[in-house]
Amino acid sequence: MSTTPAKKKGRSAASGGRKKRAYRPATAEEMAGKQREISVSEFFTKNRHLLGFDNPRKALLTTVKEAVDNALDACEEAGILPHISVAIHRVSDLNGSRADAPERVEDMPLFGMPAARTNGAGVDDDEDEVPGRRKGATAAPERYLVAVEDNGPGIVREQVARIFGKLLYGSKFHRLRQSRGQQGIGISAAGMYGQLTTGKPVRIWSRISKKKPAHFIEMHMDLKKNTPEVTRDEECEWNREYETGTRVEIELEAKYQRGARSVDDYLLQTALANPHVTIRYRDPDGNEHPIDRAVKDLPEPSREIQPHPYGVELGMLIQMMKSTSAKKLKAFLSRDFSRVSSRTAGRICEKAKLSPTAWISRIAREEADRLHRALVEVKIKNPPTDCVAPIGEAAVRAALERERPGAFVHAVTRAPSVYRGNPFVVEAGIAWGGEGVAADQLATLYRFANRVPLLYQQSACAVSKAVLSCPWRNYGVDQSRGALPSGPLLVFVHLASVWVPFTSESKEAIAHYPEILKDIRLAVMDCGRQLGLHLSRQRRLVDAQKKKDYIAAYLPHIVVALTEILDLDEKAQKKATNDLTDLLERARGI
Amino acid sequence: MSTTPAKKKGRSAASGGRKKRAYRPATAEEMAGKQREISVSEFFTKNRHLLGFDNPRKALLTTVKEAVDNALDACEEAGILPHISVAIHRVSDLNGSRADAPERVEDMPLFGMPAARTNGAGVDDDEDEVPGRRKGATAAPERYLVAVEDNGPGIVREQVARIFGKLLYGSKFHRLRQSRGQQGIGISAAGMYGQLTTGKPVRIWSRISKKKPAHFIEMHMDLKKNTPEVTRDEECEWNREYETGTRVEIELEAKYQRGARSVDDYLLQTALANPHVTIRYRDPDGNEHPIDRAVKDLPEPSREIQPHPYGVELGMLIQMMKSTSAKKLKAFLSRDFSRVSSRTAGRICEKAKLSPTAWISRIAREEADRLHRALVEVKIKNPPTDCVAPIGEAAVRAALERERPGAFVHAVTRAPSVYRGNPFVVEAGIAWGGEGVAADQLATLYRFANRVPLLYQQSACAVSKAVLSCPWRNYGVDQSRGALPSGPLLVFVHLASVWVPFTSESKEAIAHYPEILKDIRLAVMDCGRQLGLHLSRQRRLVDAQKKKDYIAAYLPHIVVALTEILDLDEKAQKKATNDLTDLLERARGI
Repeated sequence: MSTTPAKKKGRSAASGGRKKRAYRPATAEEMAGKQREISVSEFFTKNRHLLGFDNPRKALLTTVKEAVDNALDACEEAGILPHISVAIHRVSDLNGSRADAPERVEDMPLFGMPAARTNGAGVDDDEDEVPGRRKGATAAPERYLVAVEDNGPGIVREQVARIFGKLLYGSKFHRLRQSRGQQGIGISAAGMYGQLTTGKPVRIWSRISKKKPAHFIEMHMDLKKNTPEVTRDEECEWNREYETGTRVEIELEAKYQRGARSVDDYLLQTALANPHVTIRYRDPDGNEHPIDRAVKDLPEPSREIQPHPYGVELGMLIQMMKSTSAKKLKAFLSRDFSRVSSRTAGRICEKAKLSPTAWISRIAREEADRLHRALVEVKIKNPPTDCVAPIGEAAVRAALERERPGAFVHAVTRAPSVYRGNPFVVEAGIAWGGEGVAADQLATLYRFANRVPLLYQQSACAVSKAVLSCPWRNYGVDQSRGALPSGPLLVFVHLASVWVPFTSESKEAIAHYPEILKDIRLAVMDCGRQLGLHLSRQRRLVDAQKKKDYIAAYLPHIVVALTEILDLDEKAQKKATNDLTDLLERARGI
Repeated sequence: MSTTPAKKKGRSAASGGRKKRAYRPATAEEMAGKQREISVSEFFTKNRHLLGFDNPRKALLTTVKEAVDNALDACEEAGILPHISVAIHRVSDLNGSRADAPERVEDMPLFGMPAARTNGAGVDDDEDEVPGRRKGATAAPERYLVAVEDNGPGIVREQVARIFGKLLYGSKFHRLRQSRGQQGIGISAAGMYGQLTTGKPVRIWSRISKKKPAHFIEMHMDLKKNTPEVTRDEECEWNREYETGTRVEIELEAKYQRGARSVDDYLLQTALANPHVTIRYRDPDGNEHPIDRAVKDLPEPSREIQPHPYGVELGMLIQMMKSTSAKKLKAFLSRDFSRVSSRTAGRICEKAKLSPTAWISRIAREEADRLHRALVEVKIKNPPTDCVAPIGEAAVRAALERERPGAFVHAVTRAPSVYRGNPFVVEAGIAWGGEGVAADQLATLYRFANRVPLLYQQSACAVSKAVLSCPWRNYGVDQSRGALPSGPLLVFVHLASVWVPFTSESKEAIAHYPEILKDIRLAVMDCGRQLGLHLSRQRRLVDAQKKKDYIAAYLPHIVVALTEILDLDEKAQKKATNDLTDLLERARGI
């Protein structure tokens, strides 16, 4: 923190303006003396907006999100139907009850807290606040206590501190399998932010089996070393209806607000994309929002896979050869890659002009280069799709119909694709019109990645980029340059992948990989075309009705005129009317 | 990479569709077995788009950018007028000359390479490519050799490997001072990307004094451990006109394209914001682009400062108290903070009800909380401004006038502000019209952070957010909802700060901190108001001219009529004309 010598301080505090400063340039040796290693926690403390903690309102959402995502992942991995409780308390409402530090879970009932206030703050429909534009945006943040509890498998005692107190630690990074978490950063970052803003520790209760006692752990983080500092580690009671589970409590400076991009919004959208989840949510004003599961089956479990040869880069291939347990080339290829059968491995060796029984450890860099080129030259099946679990067209359609009753709805689940060796599936849905939806607005965009709603950074997201680039005018929808299409339109996009490339560690937006952009674009265009057909059919119907009305209005007069001129009898008159109607309607193509 | 047991592989490769899978849920113990630490280099290998390597075109730009930014920082810190050489070679053009591995700099002349091709690829005006929209977007990337050389102070031999081969290592992270680099990631990431895509090492030549020999180092990176692996480390010759300097060469898969967001564009914009820099640039087609410095003075060196009390959070305060060299409270406050005099420190202690001579090590968490609250209650001067070096209103205006000759131009440098204790200065400039600028387009936005042009992620940037939120219609400029204003408009925004909060490690966009958003908005609005005055003045002039023309056209007829009715003589006629003209023009307010 203080590399400048202390004697300089007095002067620096005093000198105000832009006076001439005594400045001595640095030499290479002096610069070398300042070079230091930077710990991950130091890095993210300074760059905490990368983790989703740029402002107090977002900090609250991110904290809840990380805890809930972890809970859902753990439940699904253990094959347990998730039951998640989320409670947010204003610390000023708690009357020191946390200061008493009850270590038994039942001392902190989730839904027994006194509700002090009933009126929440106003709705903020802006993505991020621009101060000076709305009042109260700079109000001092309050302190909140966030408690998230699940009925998952629990966490073994030895791992708790590292999982919650060490950035870049986890089980999901080193495997290729669809899950919500993937970096081993999120929940530790939430605890770190809590500690930074309130100085309070993170508290965890967990039980992994009914045969074993539950345990309670309280800890701080050493921000210079990126290590947890456990201050309490005790057995505790577990008075819950479920046998196993985890509860985490984090106190932080935050701001609670309803409306778009709120915790309420996030939990509702989570339920939309995860119909198998039951959520009990108590907001800071004491309102309870129970969301019951709509289906009783867990989603198909997604399988772990090996990397696909098409997405592996030379450097990665060399790294894989260094760490493989295989001894010979062919075995390595067929064992460490997805979709490489023994026969395919043989063909790859042939293309690379390498012996299938070559020792991996003896393969030179030049040969690795040949091998890498051969990997993409041999035709290999697309990666297996059971490592990703899309929501499904029917479910997306149903979700949209529930969201926009009476709207025109269409949904598409595309075939799996690959980017950098990672399989992914894009799903898109579209809803147009519906009851009470204003027509003079920009389209609403719902973005999901691995069933997690993405609420922030919409404009930075590949989804927005792709949606903006669709030829909306071709589908009969207005679009200003550089803006979303306008009209009573809702666009829903879900990306499911074994590795979602987010634009930052806060996982708010999807990076612009060409393969992903392309698939999203194609999926949305598919929906757009259906919308176009629907709209032009609607227009044709309206036109036709108009013409029919014209004919109905004027034909009798023509017939009267004909009757007078030709002196027709009643029967001939009727026949003429029918013939003329037929003729005109046929001519008009009705 | 391979946590799934090997025996599963055969089956996984074979099973194709969505058959019923044998799936056994995991227990807490099994999950614990999979928990692992993730190294920073593993993390960024998988998330390399966070570092600006999402696609081959951007990879080329990012590599040049990181090397040039480092070169400029080093030169300025050492008080040397920067002379930067950048050369990009297609590896296919090099005819194996790199394979011979010349370790002396003169063996790789910067401007002596044979130019093989002369026609570059077309201009791409899109921020990121959306495949399927333009042809050739998926063409296989070529290999390029990027060489960047400076006349800076050089790097001492022991530090070279760590600076170029270790992520999160550097001198700029742990100090508060304006510099281009700040994270200790950039150049190592470029080397890592090169190694990943080509398997080739990074090569560095450097000399730190004419009394010492230059040295040559070649190295790979261990991506699992985040450590450099030096393969060659030798003394070498230094045949350069400057005594000290550094040269780095990285080979990587990339794509060279001219136009917006190209290396060419980046170097031109860099010269715009750094008029003291001389750049020699040779593009892959062999074209040389010399840019000579416009001024012969280095910018005022920016000073290193201590954190300002207003931006320090509780957790950070506790961390600072842990690591301070001060023993007593008052000494700690006045030594480790910016703008805290001994008297101010006393007042803070008083507010916090703590003794000025309290031992730092004995201050309890509860007392730290009181101290933290007292910090913001005491009035403290804004941080010193000489730690940030804005470009200056005159220089911004001059740059805009050079860029848009004949345009209406206005520029504003705001007073320094603070976000989270970090001083920053926002500068904005605006240019309207000018020769040959099309009027029917969206505004162009130039963004700079610490004099570095930001070329990507425009829509994710706080600058865009702030510019979009300005009331452009009030200034007489059209703006569609959710889009940039339209017209022959150029908006220039520069943020100078001791710590620029970027939205990702690739440093492409500024995060949405409320204080920063507010200052950008105010600066741009200031320019906008001037534009509004200019435009309404223009409109008034046009209107007035129109009215003047009316009067000139009709008055004579009125006078003729009057002459006839009143029978005026010539003199009276002339007087009537003048009086009427006066009267009408005064009434019209001309």
